[in-house]
Amino acid sequence: MALTKPCPHCGQPVVHYRNPVPTVDALIHIPGRGVVFVKRLNEPHGWALPGGFVDYGECAEKAAIREAKEETGLTVELTGLLGVYSDPARDPRQHTLSVVYLAQALDPDELAAGDDAKEVAVFPIGQWPRPLCFDHERIVNDYARLFTNVNPL
Amino acid sequence: MALTKPCPHCGQPVVHYRNPVPTVDALIHIPGRGVVFVKRLNEPHGWALPGGFVDYGECAEKAAIREAKEETGLTVELTGLLGVYSDPARDPRQHTLSVVYLAQALDPDELAAGDDAKEVAVFPIGQWPRPLCFDHERIVNDYARLFTNVNPL
Repeated sequence: MALTKPCPHCGQPVVHYRNPVPTVDALIHIPGRGVVFVKRLNEPHGWALPGGFVDYGECAEKAAIREAKEETGLTVELTGLLGVYSDPARDPRQHTLSVVYLAQALDPDELAAGDDAKEVAVFPIGQWPRPLCFDHERIVNDYARLFTNVNPL
Repeated sequence: MALTKPCPHCGQPVVHYRNPVPTVDALIHIPGRGVVFVKRLNEPHGWALPGGFVDYGECAEKAAIREAKEETGLTVELTGLLGVYSDPARDPRQHTLSVVYLAQALDPDELAAGDDAKEVAVFPIGQWPRPLCFDHERIVNDYARLFTNVNPL
């Protein structure tokens, strides 16, 4: 999609091309405890899975590992792909497309809030913190269904 | 990533923000026959899975169904997510991130080359056409492994 913005120097219209912006999220499940969430320092406020933008020149997997480290202190390895979430209304700021990976932490004791987070905490499956930002309620409920499908209650 | 380009009116530098560009591909498997490929009319030339850019304001699933229809004539329903491919070198033109869906055609007899395709054809699993563009060799080989894992030889 072409989007026109004024040139900051002469004020004439300059065309910028606009695409959905790719992001990543990491669903880090600490064995026996639950899923890692961060309380966001920036708008929109609330709890979310650790994640962020994929840099130009960076693959999505590396972006997910980098964001998990920056926001939670955890070194993670990815164990699978939960899904891709791209509803245009999922982020109030702009249209993003998020690739959500399943991940495990090498050392859960490293858990510590990063620069973009007020707080970081682990919540049991289904006992999610509130409010959850973006479409993360949908994402973690998709995960809860998968998890309960392969684990006896 | 910030990228500076000259304003077309005054020549002064204007900052454009650059992110990987999200795309979709559809792996359409016709029962008993194989996978649908299109021979590309535009650069890079060669065979590829049907696919293209996700529009701003469009979810990835709808983009995959739309591109399949435009390029192959087939009305498809998506049956799963094969993977997300985002190696910065996967497309020689720019950094793209492709979401690859598995799909089935409602009526395989509708197969017909669309505007962006020279030709459209079905190839048996593992007997891929050559040359294959982008990283589609990797994608279809990932699919062949999955398929042979669940089907007796």
